Amino acid sequence: MPTVCLAGTGGMLPLPERFLTTLYVRSGANALLIDCGEGTQVALAQAELKLSRINIIFITHAHADHVTGLPGLLLSLGNTNRSEPVTICYPAPAEQAIRGLLTVCGELPYQLILRPLPADQAISFPCPEADPFLTVSTLPLQHSVPCIGYRLSFGKRPRFLPEKARALAVPVTDYKALIDGRSITLPSGVTVLPEDVTAPPPSPTVITYVTDTLPLPEIADFGRDSELFICEGMYGSDDKREAMEQKKHTTMPDACRLAAKAGAKRLWLTHYSPAERTPEEYEDSLKALFPSLTIARNTSPLTHSF
Amino acid sequence: MPTVCLAGTGGMLPLPERFLTTLYVRSGANALLIDCGEGTQVALAQAELKLSRINIIFITHAHADHVTGLPGLLLSLGNTNRSEPVTICYPAPAEQAIRGLLTVCGELPYQLILRPLPADQAISFPCPEADPFLTVSTLPLQHSVPCIGYRLSFGKRPRFLPEKARALAVPVTDYKALIDGRSITLPSGVTVLPEDVTAPPPSPTVITYVTDTLPLPEIADFGRDSELFICEGMYGSDDKREAMEQKKHTTMPDACRLAAKAGAKRLWLTHYSPAERTPEEYEDSLKALFPSLTIARNTSPLTHSF
Repeated sequence: MPTVCLAGTGGMLPLPERFLTTLYVRSGANALLIDCGEGTQVALAQAELKLSRINIIFITHAHADHVTGLPGLLLSLGNTNRSEPVTICYPAPAEQAIRGLLTVCGELPYQLILRPLPADQAISFPCPEADPFLTVSTLPLQHSVPCIGYRLSFGKRPRFLPEKARALAVPVTDYKALIDGRSITLPSGVTVLPEDVTAPPPSPTVITYVTDTLPLPEIADFGRDSELFICEGMYGSDDKREAMEQKKHTTMPDACRLAAKAGAKRLWLTHYSPAERTPEEYEDSLKALFPSLTIARNTSPLTHSF
Repeated sequence: MPTVCLAGTGGMLPLPERFLTTLYVRSGANALLIDCGEGTQVALAQAELKLSRINIIFITHAHADHVTGLPGLLLSLGNTNRSEPVTICYPAPAEQAIRGLLTVCGELPYQLILRPLPADQAISFPCPEADPFLTVSTLPLQHSVPCIGYRLSFGKRPRFLPEKARALAVPVTDYKALIDGRSITLPSGVTVLPEDVTAPPPSPTVITYVTDTLPLPEIADFGRDSELFICEGMYGSDDKREAMEQKKHTTMPDACRLAAKAGAKRLWLTHYSPAERTPEEYEDSLKALFPSLTIARNTSPLTHSF
């Protein structure tokens, strides 16, 4: 099951005391990253997260504060003697900016796979790069440039029920195949399906990451039943709502309302405006809207293991 | 006269405790910057240096640790309501990488002037963007990609000698023209040249910045009589010399030898390898090679006012 670290929470520009927003999600030996602004490799080092685990990077959109850390991070990955490929997923219209940034990387010692995603329709796909049971879903957001949100659904293995296997006379040597999700055929000619000998899998662990967007109502559906809903909160006060609507951003109170509508278990805010130096001052008022809220302190990354 | 701040001293990759090498030189209300790796805008903020003064940026070469901070810095400059142009100078073959990085900037609210410099011959040019009496000279260096060194020569105003002007019967209303370097013609028809009424100007203040290169002998000539010679020192020990020759870098001992040959007044080392966590441990042995040496501590920028 994943361990999640929000290693930076800044929007617009990096501050001496606050890294730009980036999410590192580890599952076993592998990790994925969402967003990679200037200084992300330093944020990860400071949070003691291993760069070398990162096999896939998701980019929400091609504004500088979400992408300019890419060349440095990819080059540093190259310095770790890496030979496994790295995949970068991004909204298709960001292609030119992504390729522009990569110009500075020269020849990397591993394969870089560029995977543009549709920015105008939601899709879902398996993500074995990070976890064999992970499904990633996207949601087109509404920002000044094409932007997408990511929903990470970490599926769980169905629980094997040996008593059922015994009742069906499955040889012990066939247990592994069934546990791995393959059917087997008994000497009698009877086929045994994995679901015949397993309990239905528990619900997946869902982590949703949404930033740089108007607070669209569909975000609540997209984040439905998230164990962890991570959402932009540019400003703490509702007074900024109109200005944020113009700039196509979400305020902290709106993020709380979305989390409540989504039925999320917990909410982490991120992508604070540089003008919000101490977002924790809003914590009490925001908890009236969504009690299970955590506001990251500037210098400490937020971590949770599921 | 300039104030110089070496706001970062790292090579290859930014570390939590060390920014990438960057030099900020302020003269009056204006400033220039040399090199702009990932996190430079944070390094400048931490050193309390104003981004908004920067009118011109010099890039030594297009390796990521010297350029990937450009988009973030330029965008942050745009957030300061700037309308004056910003010039970026770089070795001509770096053009594609520089333009690639700028893709992510979109439309900036000021004019960006790209000024490629020859990477295969030394040139000199005035730099009124930073100081009316500044001349910048370049030196082609030898690295794995085209790279140039910069010599900043801050000229001084010649001292006006009113007694000489009085002796030539120059009207007081013409003093300013002569001080500003223009000739005047007296009612008698006699022409008075600025040098007729001024003392020869004192020697300029020279600051030389050289990094990512073999320790070429011509660097000593290039840095001749520098008040401040700033030079790469990737590793502290001479043992690394052979490895550094292969990678086309300069060691700290070689930097000291170059500074001594150049007759420099003082030497600052920069561009330390990430493997050199405490370069100050070499200070004593290096001072045997060049006594006026300062090694920046990781978190404190080095500053000097001339």
